[in-house]
Amino acid sequence: MVWSLRVAATSPQIRLGEVASNAESIRVALKDAVAAGAELIVLPELATSGYVFTDRDEAAEASITRDDPLWSELAAVLAPGVTAVVGYAERAEHHLYNSAAVFTSDQWIGDYRKSHLWGAEAGLFEKGSSAGALFEVPFGRLGVAICYDNEFPEVPRRLALGGADVLALPVNWPRVPRPNGERPPEIIQAMAAARSSRLATVIADRVGTERGVEWTEGTAVIDSGGWVFAVPDASGCAVQTLVLGVRGDKSLPPHNDLFGDRRPHLY
Amino acid sequence: MVWSLRVAATSPQIRLGEVASNAESIRVALKDAVAAGAELIVLPELATSGYVFTDRDEAAEASITRDDPLWSELAAVLAPGVTAVVGYAERAEHHLYNSAAVFTSDQWIGDYRKSHLWGAEAGLFEKGSSAGALFEVPFGRLGVAICYDNEFPEVPRRLALGGADVLALPVNWPRVPRPNGERPPEIIQAMAAARSSRLATVIADRVGTERGVEWTEGTAVIDSGGWVFAVPDASGCAVQTLVLGVRGDKSLPPHNDLFGDRRPHLY
Repeated sequence: MVWSLRVAATSPQIRLGEVASNAESIRVALKDAVAAGAELIVLPELATSGYVFTDRDEAAEASITRDDPLWSELAAVLAPGVTAVVGYAERAEHHLYNSAAVFTSDQWIGDYRKSHLWGAEAGLFEKGSSAGALFEVPFGRLGVAICYDNEFPEVPRRLALGGADVLALPVNWPRVPRPNGERPPEIIQAMAAARSSRLATVIADRVGTERGVEWTEGTAVIDSGGWVFAVPDASGCAVQTLVLGVRGDKSLPPHNDLFGDRRPHLY
Repeated sequence: MVWSLRVAATSPQIRLGEVASNAESIRVALKDAVAAGAELIVLPELATSGYVFTDRDEAAEASITRDDPLWSELAAVLAPGVTAVVGYAERAEHHLYNSAAVFTSDQWIGDYRKSHLWGAEAGLFEKGSSAGALFEVPFGRLGVAICYDNEFPEVPRRLALGGADVLALPVNWPRVPRPNGERPPEIIQAMAAARSSRLATVIADRVGTERGVEWTEGTAVIDSGGWVFAVPDASGCAVQTLVLGVRGDKSLPPHNDLFGDRRPHLY
């Protein structure tokens, strides 16, 4: 059965270290995306905290736990059946993680801890113990990876092979040089990964700058053919209805199949 | 030590089934690329035979063996130290393969048999037993894959992890629909693979049409940053000098490394 999924990638203004005001910005963004009919809503990496920390103490200061009251305030604006993915600086005992929370209005589904750390992150966060993760959510099976994770082609591939219906990708992409007229390289990598595995990908990036780091503003919905299908409107939100074909179908008629044609014993 | 490599991807006119005239076109294309200073020259998939066969008998008719006299005629135009990669329909005992020959002026280095077969190819050719292959050539270590092989992200990745200095990619890309302003999807996949593994990729595609199949004309040199660095001139040849950095270096200073940051036990 062909099915469709209305998704939103949304990028509210985030201020470094200002957790309470960021939570309020996220709450409004979630509410607006729900109003736009989204069934999956993706926010950026470290949306509650900001990204460009000077040191671990500063990151710890802006970290929250899985049972912070903030989460129930955010869950309260979700309509039943809507899944949200929100990046946050997670504190768990003495450890910090760069995590993404996955939740609905009435359930903490889980969270994913980033396992490929970029730049100075290794001095701030512990590495997660899984390369992307899969979650059973109301609409089906959701893959989640964070930023640099997706630049390892193994990550989106294994999530797709594990049955992901769609990939949520919270990111904070510092802008890197690129030739005139080209898309950001991280978008090219996400487009290629999407196409290779027929895996639609919902990317929420930051906007503006933070401590001199200019963001790529790469928020986008990539369809399962690997094409950029939606970019943000003036509100910073990209909303689109993905037509996802038959669940799990990777066939390329009449002769081929993206997964069936793999030769795993040769890799 | 930073090194550079002058490469050519060249796409002469190929006529279905006309092996002798194709060999002559290939010979001229090789000679011109040698004159342009190329140290690596890549020709399309099935360059000696054409692609759109009606049935196996027709493919067999246009197939040649590894010891066909054609190869010494082609090798004769190479300057010492130049490596050529030429796609051909290979006959070996009762089998046919979609292969790429790798040779220099004085040595048959080897060939690679395509292991991911596209479309009707499965009715024409046997599958090769390796997913891309590595060859020691005068300039270093060459990765070779053919067309659909490269749409499996595992293939360029494993060749890069195996130490490929550059990837030669003979293709016959039938043109597929794409949104206005976008690059061909196979190019996007090659750009992403190149960037993920810092693996420059030299792609030779077909031009024009064959039995109603319109080719993508995707001949290109992609640099190790994943950007299209050269496309063909009016003669159908893309020549460029790749600056390849320190051999095997995948570092992203100050904190990262494209290979060192992998978490292979999690994949």
